[in-house]
Amino acid sequence: MAAAEWGESEHPYAPKDLKLPGYVPCFLSQKDIVFPYLGVSFLVVSLIWLVSGRSKVSKTDRLLMCWWVFTGLTHMILEGYFAFSPEFYKEKTPHFLAEVWKEYSKGDSRYAGRESGIVTVEGITAVLEGPASLLAMYAIATRKSYSYILQFSVCLGQLYGCLVYFITAFLDGDNFAAGPFYYWWYYAFANGVWVVIPSLIAIRCWKKITAATAQAEKKIKTK
Amino acid sequence: MAAAEWGESEHPYAPKDLKLPGYVPCFLSQKDIVFPYLGVSFLVVSLIWLVSGRSKVSKTDRLLMCWWVFTGLTHMILEGYFAFSPEFYKEKTPHFLAEVWKEYSKGDSRYAGRESGIVTVEGITAVLEGPASLLAMYAIATRKSYSYILQFSVCLGQLYGCLVYFITAFLDGDNFAAGPFYYWWYYAFANGVWVVIPSLIAIRCWKKITAATAQAEKKIKTK
Repeated sequence: MAAAEWGESEHPYAPKDLKLPGYVPCFLSQKDIVFPYLGVSFLVVSLIWLVSGRSKVSKTDRLLMCWWVFTGLTHMILEGYFAFSPEFYKEKTPHFLAEVWKEYSKGDSRYAGRESGIVTVEGITAVLEGPASLLAMYAIATRKSYSYILQFSVCLGQLYGCLVYFITAFLDGDNFAAGPFYYWWYYAFANGVWVVIPSLIAIRCWKKITAATAQAEKKIKTK
Repeated sequence: MAAAEWGESEHPYAPKDLKLPGYVPCFLSQKDIVFPYLGVSFLVVSLIWLVSGRSKVSKTDRLLMCWWVFTGLTHMILEGYFAFSPEFYKEKTPHFLAEVWKEYSKGDSRYAGRESGIVTVEGITAVLEGPASLLAMYAIATRKSYSYILQFSVCLGQLYGCLVYFITAFLDGDNFAAGPFYYWWYYAFANGVWVVIPSLIAIRCWKKITAATAQAEKKIKTK
C-alpha cells in the first residue's frame, strides 16, 4: 500500500478511530521486512548449529542453543527497539526496526497505539528475557548447573507474557487486526511460536529438575 | 467516610474523572475490612504451623507451608472474586469481598476501573497461582521431588505479575491512589510483600535446584 493512501492522521490499522498523529506509512513491503528477518535469523542459527557441532554437546542441546540465540536476539533487538521507541510509527526514513513494528501493528494496533500492557510485556521481555536467553545458550554450551532452571525461568516469563498479551486483547475486544490475514499470521501464529516452544522446553526442564532433585534426596536418605 | 458524601456517579477514587456509574460506597470501615482479613489469615497460618509441627518437616519448610496457604487462599478467594466480579463496586449489600476491593481501589483505582492489565494479572494469579500455591504446601508436606520447581514457578509468576502491575501504573501516569496513605500502604506496601517474599523463596529454590542438578551431573560423570 502506498504512502499517499493515507492523510496525515490516517493509518492502515484497526480500529479506524485509533489516533496516531504524525503516522508515516511503511516504506518497505511485507516481504522486504519478513524475509530479511527470517534470513538473518537462519544465518545466525546455522552458525550456532555449525559451531556447536565441534563441541560434545548433544543434538537436542545444540537445537536449544539455536533457539536461545534466535529468541534472545529477537527479544533484545526487535522488541528492545519497540519498548524504547514510542514514536516508531512517525519514522520518516525506512529504518528497518521501525518498519517491522509499523508492519506488525497491522496484526495488533496496540503496538502503534502504545498500550501500556504491551509496552510493559515487551520491556520485560527485552530487558530481562533477552539477555537471559543468551545466557541460557552459554549455560548449555558450558554445562552449567543452572542451565535447566535458567531455561525454565525464561520460558515461564515468555509464557506469562503471552498470557497477558492474549488475555488483555480478549478483554479489550479483540479488534486490533487490520484483517484476517494479519490476525492469524501476525497476532496468532507469530506469538503462538512463543507459546509452543517455551512450553516444550519448560516441560523438559521440569522433568530434568525433578529427576535431579529426586536423585539428590535419595542420596541424602541413603547416607 | 459516609455513603452520603457521594452522589450517584461520584466516588472516592483518583483520578476524579474516572467514570463509575452505579458506584455504591463502602459499608465497612477500613479496620472492619483489614482486621478480619489479617485475623482469619493468622488463624489459618497458626493452624498450619501447629499441624505441620507433628510431622518431620523442618521449621523453614513449616514457615513456607504457612506462606503458601496464606498466599494461595488470598489468590483464590480475594483475587478470584475480583477477577470474576466486574461489578463489585455496585454491590448494594456489605459483601465482604466487594468491600475489600472497594477499599483497595483507594490505593489503585484501576481495580474499580477494570483496567484490562489488572484483570488479566489478577485472573492469572487466581486461576493458576492460587491452586498451585496450595499444591506447593502439599508438595512440601509430602516431600515431592517437584516441590522446589513448583514453588519457584509460582514465585516467578507472582514476580512477573508485580512487575506488570507496577510498570503499567508507571506508564499510565502513576495517579491512581486517593492519597499518600493509600498509595504507600495499599499500593506499595501490600504489593511489596509479594515482591520480597517470592524473591526470597525463588532464590532459595534456585540454589536448591542448581545444587541438585550439579550433584546429579557429577553422579553421571563418575559412573
